[in-house]
Formats: sequence, structure tokens, C-alpha cells
Amino acid sequence: MGEIMPMLLMASWHQCAQFLFILSMSIPTAIRAQQPIGIFDSGVGGLTVAAAVARHLPHESIVYFGDTAHMPYGEKSVEAIQHYSQRIADFLLALPCKCIIIACHTASAAAAAILAKHIGSRALLLDVIQPVVSAVNEAGIAQVGIISTARTYKSGVYPAGLRQYNPALRVAAKPTPSLAQMIEEGLHRAPKVMAAVAEHYLSDPLFDDIEGLILACTHYPLIKTHIARYYEQRQGTAPKIFDSTDTVARALAHALAQEQLICPNTEQLPIHRFFVSDYTAAFEQTAALFFEQNIRLQHYPIWD
Amino acid sequence: MGEIMPMLLMASWHQCAQFLFILSMSIPTAIRAQQPIGIFDSGVGGLTVAAAVARHLPHESIVYFGDTAHMPYGEKSVEAIQHYSQRIADFLLALPCKCIIIACHTASAAAAAILAKHIGSRALLLDVIQPVVSAVNEAGIAQVGIISTARTYKSGVYPAGLRQYNPALRVAAKPTPSLAQMIEEGLHRAPKVMAAVAEHYLSDPLFDDIEGLILACTHYPLIKTHIARYYEQRQGTAPKIFDSTDTVARALAHALAQEQLICPNTEQLPIHRFFVSDYTAAFEQTAALFFEQNIRLQHYPIWD
Repeated sequence: MGEIMPMLLMASWHQCAQFLFILSMSIPTAIRAQQPIGIFDSGVGGLTVAAAVARHLPHESIVYFGDTAHMPYGEKSVEAIQHYSQRIADFLLALPCKCIIIACHTASAAAAAILAKHIGSRALLLDVIQPVVSAVNEAGIAQVGIISTARTYKSGVYPAGLRQYNPALRVAAKPTPSLAQMIEEGLHRAPKVMAAVAEHYLSDPLFDDIEGLILACTHYPLIKTHIARYYEQRQGTAPKIFDSTDTVARALAHALAQEQLICPNTEQLPIHRFFVSDYTAAFEQTAALFFEQNIRLQHYPIWD
Repeated sequence: MGEIMPMLLMASWHQCAQFLFILSMSIPTAIRAQQPIGIFDSGVGGLTVAAAVARHLPHESIVYFGDTAHMPYGEKSVEAIQHYSQRIADFLLALPCKCIIIACHTASAAAAAILAKHIGSRALLLDVIQPVVSAVNEAGIAQVGIISTARTYKSGVYPAGLRQYNPALRVAAKPTPSLAQMIEEGLHRAPKVMAAVAEHYLSDPLFDDIEGLILACTHYPLIKTHIARYYEQRQGTAPKIFDSTDTVARALAHALAQEQLICPNTEQLPIHRFFVSDYTAAFEQTAALFFEQNIRLQHYPIWD
């Protein structure tokens, strides 16, 4: 691997994402199916991914780490995000997790390559972008829309990834900067506000002919029904919605099955644990929103 | 002054705000009316205050400093905010400004006392909270509502200040966490979104009997018309709206007149300058929104 990695580091994330995915599949037999799945994000938004994993793989135990001390990652340097990601990966590997999911778009773009090298064959590695890009490609559509935070929009990570599979794909990307904050505040439970906001963003002529819509932020799955309702009222049918919850959970199930690492169905209930690097009661409330049930966040001061 | 300040530092901001105001009025004759007015904020939101100053005092030159390198101040420690405020004050004093306005609620609460000591008699000092608290008191109302960012809500700075004047005043405070971000994105120009959002926040029974409403964030004056429209449609009349734009500009005009520091009306047009500690094109767009005209932001790397 010593000869492979320098090349990987020089290549862009897009170029080597698929290769890394395959590379990280080559795991030693020491990894056992009973080990938990590690999931991390800069905050609690990645819990939408954890909730999907719990739905799709009900016997798996989950360890979630939200780096709330450094959130949001959006304004941090690439070096800082890579450093944080490696420290969190070490924490998850020590538990030990059989797989690590980067449930954060910014960290997926900034740190997937360096994490693949860092983790090596100690665990599987998945991010939230590659499975969505693959799913859009498999759906065989000609025009896709993307809504995301301003940071993910600026990174261009989705259009670049999508065009690698299909250079002819028409991609219409639009930043929706206030949406994540609004969801965090709970405004997705205010139907009138959400109807007005969905119309404001989605009525952009840019999206007129899209056959698919990517919700490129871990918060957005919570407004999926509002988006579907907007399209139903406007035109009867909605474009196919892609997000990083079910899509990532399905990619994980596939990867685990391939490596014979699916946790067997025993009498024992799975144990989920949720850690944050900075604790406030507000995080716990938001966490319940994203994981779809009340959970207890444990303060784990990884940086102290 | 050496004997006065330790007492001031030990007292709370609320307790000594009025005293500081009076103290900072005792300025030496060296200050001249032709010197500009310095205004600072953590970002560009404070430009709503600058716009009001330019409207009320059209012959005054303004120097604005937005500490965009450290924005938002909301999550920073009190010590950091005090340090940033003093450095910015030094920059403004060196120009030299005859008056400094802290056009940021967080910095007003965290650094007004220490800034008054730091500036001494070199310039006048105003913040955005005290003039509003005085105006509400003078209006002689029995129940007032407050909308603000989560941080200002948690600080309790307004209820505490208001009750100092009138312990019987009923104060209903409500955080509106997404509002500042939505305005920064320009969503206040989406009438349907704003109507839904105004209804969502203001229909809270908490606000049922308010006679006044404080817009306790420098961004909120931009949605004043939406708020008025909500109340007109709901009940015909709106509570009296208080914000930190016109109120602060009037307090400034009063303070300058008292010290005979109003810039005389000459043929010369005032010169406004706008500095930011970190420059992006997005800041310039938002700045135009808040100052109500296109302006050029100059990058001044005060921290490098």
C-alpha cells in the first residue's frame, strides 16, 4: 500500500473514490460481524444517516460521534477537517468499529482519501456522496437537480462526481443556505413555512425539467414529504428524490453482505451509543429530531 | 478614573451601562466635529445601524469595520470578544473616530464595560442595547415582546436592562434562530416565505397582549414591513416596533449635539469607508442589502 497511496493523495477525491471504496473492502479476517458500525458528522445532522442504518440493518449496533466542538465544518480548512476526521476515526476504531461512515458532506469531500489511507484494512469506509452518485447513475436519468448548503454547492463535489459516470448528464445545482438551520430549529414542522420555502427554492426555472432531485445535506431528508407535496400540487408527479439516508444504508448493507460482516439476528438487542465532543441540551433535542426517537448524548471530550 | 474602573468591572454590564454612557460623555476638547463616526460589528449586519446613522446625520462621515474573520461572535468566549473589540476600537481611534458604536448585540453585552475603560475620553461610546431599552421605557408601555437570535435570548440582556427601569414591565422574549440567516440569504425579499415565517413566530400566544416589539438583532429591521403587515392583517394595528437602527441613530444625534460634535453642513460630501477583516464577494452582496446601496468593502487584515 506504501506505493499506492502517494498516487491516491495526488489524485482528486472524485478520481479515486471508487478505487478507495474497493480498496477499503480488502479487510482482514480479524474484523468480526458483531462489531458496531461507527458513524460521524460535524454535528447531529448525520443522525439521519444513523436512523436509516438502524432501519435497514436492525441487528447492527451503532456508535455515533458528533464533533459539536468544531461544528460547523463548512468554514474550516481542509487540513483541520482531515485532522478532526482522523482523530474521530481513531476513537471509532478503538471501540472497535467494523465500518466507519463519514456522515458529513464536507468531511466526505475533504477527508475521504486521507481517511482511507489512515484506516487501511482495519475497517470498511463509506461516505455520503459516492452512494448517491452511484444511485443517480443507475437510475438512468438525463437531468438532475441538487439542493445543498452553500459550502457543498461551492465545492462542486456532486456535479463532478456525477459527470464522471455520465458526462452528458445535465446537472442543475442550487444552494439553499438557510434550510439546514431552519430544520435544526424545527421549522420543518411548520407546514405553511415549509410550503412557502419549498416553493421558493424549487420553483426556480433551473429545476423545470429535472427527473431527479438530490438532497445533498444530511438535514434535508426531514423535509422530503414537503418537497413531494410541492411537486404533487404543482404538477402531479415528483422527480425521483435521492438522499444520503436510505441510499447510504443500502450501500452499507451491500458492502457488509459482500464481506460477510452482517451482524446475525440473535436474541440480543443492538446497542446504540451517541457521543458528542461538546454537549448542550439543545443538541440532545435536535438529535431526537434527526434520529426519530429520544436518545441520550454522551459528552466525550476527545479534544481535551 | 483609576479608582472608578475596578468597581465598574465588578458590576454587571446592566448596572453600569448608564454610568458608562455618562462617563464616556466627558470627552476632552481635542475631539473635533469633523472626525468620522466609527461603527463595528462581527459581520455586515451592523450596516443597518450605519445606514440609519447616514440617514439621520447626513453630513457625518462613517468608518465601518466588520470582523468577518471572527464572525459569528455568538459562539465565542467573552474574553475573545473583549479582545477583538479592543483591537477594532484601536483601529477606529487611530483614524481618528470621534465616536464608536458597538453595532453588535453580543459585543454590546460582552465588551461595553471594558471598551469604555479602554477608550476612556478619546471618543464617545454607544452600543445598540441601551438606546432601545431607554426608548421602550420612555414609551411607557406595560408589556413588551422581544425577538432575537438564540444567543441574545440566552444572554437575558434585554429583559434585565428593561426591568432595571421598570420592574413591573412584562417582558415576553422569544428566540427566532433562523431569521438572521434567512435575511442574510435574501429571503426577506420572498413575500410568501416572510409572511409564513412572521405568522409562525408572532402568532405565539406569548405575544398576544404586547404593546411593543423589540427587534433585538441588527438584521431584523429589514423585515419590519413584513412584521407590520402581519399585525395589520391579523388585528388592524401593530404594536410599536423598536429596533437598533433609528433609535441608536437618534441617541447618537443627541449625544453629539450635547457635546457640540455634530459635523457642520459644508459643501463637502461625507466620506464613508467600509472595512472587513476577511473579504468574500458574498459579504459585499449582503453589505449592499444592509446599507441599502452598493458599497465597496475593503479588506483590512487587522489580525495578520
